[in-house]
Amino acid sequence: MSTSSVYHFTFLSQANNVDLNSAHLTAADMGLPEDVNIECRLQTLRGGKQQGSKLITLTVGDKTLRIVPTRAMAVLDVVRNGQRFGWDSPVKEVVHPHFINAEASGGLGWLDGFNEMLVRCGYQWAGHPGKDQGERLSLHGRIQNTPASEVSLEVEQQPPYRVTLKGRVDEKRFKSTNYEVFTELAMTPDEPYVHVTDTLSNLSNYDNSYQAIYHNNFGTPILEQGASLQIAARQVSPFNEYAQQGLAEWNQMPAPTVDFDEMVFNVFPLPDEDGQCHALLKNANGDAGVEVSWAIETLPVLTIWKNTDTLEQGYVVGIEPGTSFAYNRTHQWDLGLVPTIAGKESKQFKLRFGLFTEAEEVQASEELIDKIQITPTLVSNSPLVKL
Amino acid sequence: MSTSSVYHFTFLSQANNVDLNSAHLTAADMGLPEDVNIECRLQTLRGGKQQGSKLITLTVGDKTLRIVPTRAMAVLDVVRNGQRFGWDSPVKEVVHPHFINAEASGGLGWLDGFNEMLVRCGYQWAGHPGKDQGERLSLHGRIQNTPASEVSLEVEQQPPYRVTLKGRVDEKRFKSTNYEVFTELAMTPDEPYVHVTDTLSNLSNYDNSYQAIYHNNFGTPILEQGASLQIAARQVSPFNEYAQQGLAEWNQMPAPTVDFDEMVFNVFPLPDEDGQCHALLKNANGDAGVEVSWAIETLPVLTIWKNTDTLEQGYVVGIEPGTSFAYNRTHQWDLGLVPTIAGKESKQFKLRFGLFTEAEEVQASEELIDKIQITPTLVSNSPLVKL
Amino acid sequence: MSTSSVYHFTFLSQANNVDLNSAHLTAADMGLPEDVNIECRLQTLRGGKQQGSKLITLTVGDKTLRIVPTRAMAVLDVVRNGQRFGWDSPVKEVVHPHFINAEASGGLGWLDGFNEMLVRCGYQWAGHPGKDQGERLSLHGRIQNTPASEVSLEVEQQPPYRVTLKGRVDEKRFKSTNYEVFTELAMTPDEPYVHVTDTLSNLSNYDNSYQAIYHNNFGTPILEQGASLQIAARQVSPFNEYAQQGLAEWNQMPAPTVDFDEMVFNVFPLPDEDGQCHALLKNANGDAGVEVSWAIETLPVLTIWKNTDTLEQGYVVGIEPGTSFAYNRTHQWDLGLVPTIAGKESKQFKLRFGLFTEAEEVQASEELIDKIQITPTLVSNSPLVKL
Repeated sequence: MSTSSVYHFTFLSQANNVDLNSAHLTAADMGLPEDVNIECRLQTLRGGKQQGSKLITLTVGDKTLRIVPTRAMAVLDVVRNGQRFGWDSPVKEVVHPHFINAEASGGLGWLDGFNEMLVRCGYQWAGHPGKDQGERLSLHGRIQNTPASEVSLEVEQQPPYRVTLKGRVDEKRFKSTNYEVFTELAMTPDEPYVHVTDTLSNLSNYDNSYQAIYHNNFGTPILEQGASLQIAARQVSPFNEYAQQGLAEWNQMPAPTVDFDEMVFNVFPLPDEDGQCHALLKNANGDAGVEVSWAIETLPVLTIWKNTDTLEQGYVVGIEPGTSFAYNRTHQWDLGLVPTIAGKESKQFKLRFGLFTEAEEVQASEELIDKIQITPTLVSNSPLVKL
Repeated sequence: MSTSSVYHFTFLSQANNVDLNSAHLTAADMGLPEDVNIECRLQTLRGGKQQGSKLITLTVGDKTLRIVPTRAMAVLDVVRNGQRFGWDSPVKEVVHPHFINAEASGGLGWLDGFNEMLVRCGYQWAGHPGKDQGERLSLHGRIQNTPASEVSLEVEQQPPYRVTLKGRVDEKRFKSTNYEVFTELAMTPDEPYVHVTDTLSNLSNYDNSYQAIYHNNFGTPILEQGASLQIAARQVSPFNEYAQQGLAEWNQMPAPTVDFDEMVFNVFPLPDEDGQCHALLKNANGDAGVEVSWAIETLPVLTIWKNTDTLEQGYVVGIEPGTSFAYNRTHQWDLGLVPTIAGKESKQFKLRFGLFTEAEEVQASEELIDKIQITPTLVSNSPLVKL
Repeated sequence: MSTSSVYHFTFLSQANNVDLNSAHLTAADMGLPEDVNIECRLQTLRGGKQQGSKLITLTVGDKTLRIVPTRAMAVLDVVRNGQRFGWDSPVKEVVHPHFINAEASGGLGWLDGFNEMLVRCGYQWAGHPGKDQGERLSLHGRIQNTPASEVSLEVEQQPPYRVTLKGRVDEKRFKSTNYEVFTELAMTPDEPYVHVTDTLSNLSNYDNSYQAIYHNNFGTPILEQGASLQIAARQVSPFNEYAQQGLAEWNQMPAPTVDFDEMVFNVFPLPDEDGQCHALLKNANGDAGVEVSWAIETLPVLTIWKNTDTLEQGYVVGIEPGTSFAYNRTHQWDLGLVPTIAGKESKQFKLRFGLFTEAEEVQASEELIDKIQITPTLVSNSPLVKL
């Protein structure tokens, strides 16, 4: 039996007091054959509110990801075969958590830095701001504005040359939260997929509640008039009264629309035989799309955030698997959507992004979803929560 | 036709990831004749809450300005001919926005860094903290605690050797604010003036409200017992009941006075034929003073902040042109002082500081103001707002 | 008369724009004889929320202290003869104030960085969060999340080779607080003591209220089942109803205990002839302990924070001399525990830590305390405040 050899590189380590301001790793540096297209850069951003933010640009085959260690290992965007997966927020800078005051304007400060493709919400709480159990919760929790404590790269030196970018992000408060999150982004040069594996560990010996929403956001060019969502789902319902008006077209995407603002839909997804759920956003032609897949075990519900307002305002659709919907936590206890993590327990969240740039890839995804959807999705007109 | 040539230098650029920690530009570096007294330094401040603050010291002829890019291009102070224009706040450090929590103590955190001569308040809101339209507004808005994203210097290489320090400061929040502010400080070696031209651009395609107050502050040596204000004005009224007591002497300055605290007066200014308003603060002898001039078009009202308390407490007078008075925004809708900036529109704010160190300069300013003031200022005893 | 010569070294100076990222000073560098065991290092920490925190490691004889200039000169821990004085908080990082939002979750953000042996609470206010006089006070005030402005080392070059680490920390807000705190940690190679001398200066010419609590925290190995407190005290009472249940064993320490949470006891201490109070925490064997001594003049009361919960939760006892108890300030006016500092006045807080690693040291401390305690401590069952 031969041992596989793995290239390791550390960008940041709180434990070892390592913190690189820039780095450039080529395939040769990683001990890979010359024809393997893998490369990684780290840079430190400057100016405005992005002063001090770190950005990792990781190329693996035809995919180039931009990852933000200082924002909990968020994925800013991905380009595959020249097509970008991500969106255009009015917030252009990669805002450093230093400049986020989550409590601002009644708990909306999180919005000052919101512009990534993959944004983590959680883990002590997620969802809309407001009071729950006497505590004022700010929008979508604290994790996204927490810099990683450890960041490293691992590259397998044999085919399929799996590349894994690892991070550790802590969410801690004395007597309240003692969480560590190990994040992993993994991919190979050959596959159109990015695999996310996050492990939430409760280091306390007490049980605690938690919430997680993976706020995955996609705009142009996939999002356009005629783009559509396909999701294997048991039930869809509007988040609130405003979304009721758009329920019939909940999965059909309009062009950028003045005064559309946002409609949110709550989805109970259906898993495949392996417990994986799948949601596809494809463009009008059906020759490009993004498939979000996730393990239903720990992410039982899905929020669709249809924010098809003007381009300037942020024309974007969110495909957001979660432990919970986007309501304030106070509304989710009765829905059974505030899970418990036991003392010393870990929970794993697994997602996969299919970055499709060809019609065949999109069709294969559609067929996969069709196969799961044996009975039609129940479209309910009643919001789950009376706001 | 000959093209004028201009020297350009970039201190900070988010777009190009440029961020200098120090710089020293001499007239020779700028391609100027040796006898032109123009010089510019950049330094990074250290220690306490000023850790990481940037400070630009710009000399143009007999004027030396200190500008703070990390605090929205604020002007810390100006010295002309050895006389300082600025004030002595109990806050001595050039506090980095990292250390400001605007929400602290009910929205007063802004006061932790307040010590400059030219402080911008705005632009989504300005004025006192409190609730308006369901939102808790912190004191004087967010712009002052926002670091510039772009900072550059331009120097014309021909007489009159105009020097322009440019900055861009963004104020953004997803779904709420999409503002960019281009700031310009311009001056020549020969003139006693500093020209401010700020351009607020609403990058959204939606109309939005905005407010701006230019919180210009002056202490000793101009401010002293017997110093006085002269302002071409239609009407003056006290801000509140406390200021009513000092209405008769609203423009006469006492020595530093224990328990004076602050009296605020609301002024409706009168413009000259070119739409420029002028306010002069002169010393007791009338041989030194500062003249604040501004375009009434976008800055229709003026707040006089008479904070002639003890030296330790901050002996200072504010001459503050604005879109609005210093009340919380909730009180200003009815006054018509919460203007709208249309989608894609820009608004320009123009101010000029006359830095006078001789009696002739002061007298010329007085005559200018006298000429505008054809009918006497109406001194009203009634605050505009019942607090 | 000979002048003693003193070695000076500056790590940080706001006034002189000095800010070292690392330093290593040996006895030779300090001009000391080779056999004097004095050494000092400065390092800058990296990763997560400790990005940019400074840490000074100071060895003086058999004592090694770790001090955090960026957190108001807190003492992270001390090791003497291989025995650590400090505790294990779930918060592992030396959190930079940048990442603390004191207002978070109703004023509890302070807890995000709480892990030191010596933590200063104050000085405008201390105690539990909540409203007082219309102002929302966050937990334990602002000083601990304020970086020092000046940090320097002084070493006497003659026996007993006294070493003093000095800091200055400012707490300022325009119109509210104009405090400077000069901190001193002093020790010699021969003594088992660390001397703390803090001087709070009110630079304003107005009187102001203030509060200070020295939140000194000790965990394993001294804290263990059978460890006990000995304090010369006039009276002990429970902080609240929960602490009433543990009043009988208020000074006896259990093993780490699930669901113990915290019991807090309010102590009125008895001073010795020199006005010094003493509290001893010794281990079960009585061969190791920590003695906290302090001048009653400015620190008239003592809080015992018995947080003997599980190791993971933070198994720790606080011995906390203060101007005040840990109640929100609103409850302390009537207790006479919100003192006034006059304009231009200074107040000095003096503490001494006895770091005992031998039975004789512990016994000597017990005897000292016994001698003061002529009449028994009154153990009252009534909390001073009805919450």
